[in-house]
Amino acid sequence: MTQRVTVCEVGPRDGLQIAHGRMPTALKSRWIAEIAAAGVPEIEVGSFVPARVVPAMADSAEIVRAATALPGLTVVALAPNLRGAQDAHAAGSHKIVIPVSVSAGHSQANLRRSPAEQVAEVARIVAWTREQPRPARIEGALSTAFGCSIDGVVPASAVVTLAEALAAAGVDSVSLADTVGYANPAQVRALVRAVRAAVGARLERLHLHDTMGLGLANALAGLDEGIVKFDAALAGLGGCPFAPGASGNIVTEDLVFMLESMGFSTGIDLARLLEARATLRAGLPEDELHGGLGRAGIPRTFQTAA
Amino acid sequence: MTQRVTVCEVGPRDGLQIAHGRMPTALKSRWIAEIAAAGVPEIEVGSFVPARVVPAMADSAEIVRAATALPGLTVVALAPNLRGAQDAHAAGSHKIVIPVSVSAGHSQANLRRSPAEQVAEVARIVAWTREQPRPARIEGALSTAFGCSIDGVVPASAVVTLAEALAAAGVDSVSLADTVGYANPAQVRALVRAVRAAVGARLERLHLHDTMGLGLANALAGLDEGIVKFDAALAGLGGCPFAPGASGNIVTEDLVFMLESMGFSTGIDLARLLEARATLRAGLPEDELHGGLGRAGIPRTFQTAA
Repeated sequence: MTQRVTVCEVGPRDGLQIAHGRMPTALKSRWIAEIAAAGVPEIEVGSFVPARVVPAMADSAEIVRAATALPGLTVVALAPNLRGAQDAHAAGSHKIVIPVSVSAGHSQANLRRSPAEQVAEVARIVAWTREQPRPARIEGALSTAFGCSIDGVVPASAVVTLAEALAAAGVDSVSLADTVGYANPAQVRALVRAVRAAVGARLERLHLHDTMGLGLANALAGLDEGIVKFDAALAGLGGCPFAPGASGNIVTEDLVFMLESMGFSTGIDLARLLEARATLRAGLPEDELHGGLGRAGIPRTFQTAA
Repeated sequence: MTQRVTVCEVGPRDGLQIAHGRMPTALKSRWIAEIAAAGVPEIEVGSFVPARVVPAMADSAEIVRAATALPGLTVVALAPNLRGAQDAHAAGSHKIVIPVSVSAGHSQANLRRSPAEQVAEVARIVAWTREQPRPARIEGALSTAFGCSIDGVVPASAVVTLAEALAAAGVDSVSLADTVGYANPAQVRALVRAVRAAVGARLERLHLHDTMGLGLANALAGLDEGIVKFDAALAGLGGCPFAPGASGNIVTEDLVFMLESMGFSTGIDLARLLEARATLRAGLPEDELHGGLGRAGIPRTFQTAA
C-alpha cells in the first residue's frame, strides 16, 4: 500500500500576496478550480487581513465562498487575529491558519504583537471557533521557526515552547514555517523531532521556502521524519518582504514529482497540475514563474505511485 | 570531528561546453584560479574531445597546464577515449574521467559506441595509464544511470553490471551521473546501495543535475547513504543537449551552503566562492546564472562547519 502525502497549495495566498501583478478575482477562482481539479486536496486560497495592508487579498471572502463549491476540497484561509478568523469562518473556510512568529522581531514587524500576545489571540480564536455551530480547524503556524532575517538565529527551544503553548491553547494542528528559507535538512530533522517530542502528532505540516535552493531537500528531511503534509506553491510563487532576492515557496509540481516518483501517493495528476500554470501566467503576465518541470516537462520515465 | 565532504566544481567543463557564450581562455583560467582560491579541492577544468565537436573545450590542454600550477588543487579532465586520455595526461591532469553511458541510445549518441565497447576502451586507457611514469587516477563515470531521455527507464541491474565491468577494467573509482536530471531520492538511495554492494568503496561520487529541482534532495539522499564526493557547477551552469529546457548541474554554492549548514566540512569559503560568480558573469554575459545564494546572499544565520 502506498503512503499518502498531502500537498497544500498556498500560491493563491502566499504567492499572490507578494506578486507584482494583481490577479483578477474571476481568474483567481478559475485558477483555484483548476488546481483542485488536478487533485490537490487542500488550497490556502486567501487571507483575512486589512485590504489596505495586502490589497491582493481584498477579495478573499468571495474567493473562499467560490472555493467551498469545489467538491472534496479543503478550503484554507489565513487570519492574523480573531477579527480575521471570524471573517474567514463566515466566508466558509474549512481550516484557518493563524501565524505565530517565533522571533520577536518578525512578530512585531508582521503582527505588531509579541509571540506570547499572539498565542493569547490564538486561544481566543480557538474558544470562539468552538462556540460556532459550524466547525473549522485551527492551525497555529510557527513562522521564522528556522531562522529570521531580522533577529538571526531562532533557538529550537523557543519553537518548542511556542508549540507547547499553541497545543495548550487548543489548536487542532501546528505547522513549522521556514519563512525566509534559511533551513537546512539537519535542522529540519532535529526541529521536527524536538517539536514532535513536545506536542506529538499535533505537529502536522511543514511550510518551506526555496530561497537557498534547499526547499525539496528540506522537504525530504521532513518526510524522513514522518511529516506527511507540505505546503507548496505552483511555479514557486511567493517570497518574503524581509528576504530581498528570495524566491518563493517550494514548487508544487516539483514536490509532487518528487513524492510520486518516490512511491508516495498525492492524488494529484501532474500533467493537469502543470496545465494550471497557463492560467497563472495569464493572471500574472509580468511575474517570474519558477520550477523544473515547468521548464523541462515531465520526464518520460515518470510513473505515478498509485 | 566534522566529516569532510569533497565538492568537485565541474562548471568549466560541463557548464562551459554547453553555454551560449564562449569564455576567453585567460578569463577561464582566472575563474578557475578564483574557485580554487575559495578552497574548492577538485575542479574538472576541461575535456579532450575534437575541437570541431565541442569548440568551447579547444583550449583544454592550456587550461589544464595553467590549473596544475594552482597549489593543492586536483585537476580533473574528461576524455571519451584513449586518444583524449593521452592528451589529458600529457597536459598534466591528475585525474581523468571517462564517460560510459548505461543506456545504449545515449551511448551511441554521445560516444558512437556500445556500452560494452566503451568499457573495453576504459580498460585500454587504464592499461596505458599504468605504464606511464606519472600516475593519473582514472574514473569511470556512468552516464544516464538514473534514466535517459532517449531510451527512457534505465534498469539498476544494467548500472550494477557496468560498474562491475569498470571495476574489473581497473578504474580507480566509479561515479553515477544523473545526466538528464530524472533521478529521485528513493532511486538515489537504492542505486547507491546496489552499486556499493557490487563494487564497494570504489563507488565514490555522484554527478547530479537540477533539471526537475530535485538536485539537492538527491544529493541529500546520497549523503545519507554515505557518499562524500559530489560534482556541482557554480551558478548551476550546464544542461543537457538531450533534455530541452533542462537547467544544469546542482549549484555549487547552494550545495556548499547545505553541507556546511548541516555540519559537514567542505574546506570552501562560501563568500569567496560567491565572488567567483562575477568573473563567470564577465565571461558569459548572455547566459542565465542560477542559484539561491547568488540571488539572496548568504543567510545571516550561516555558520561554517569547521
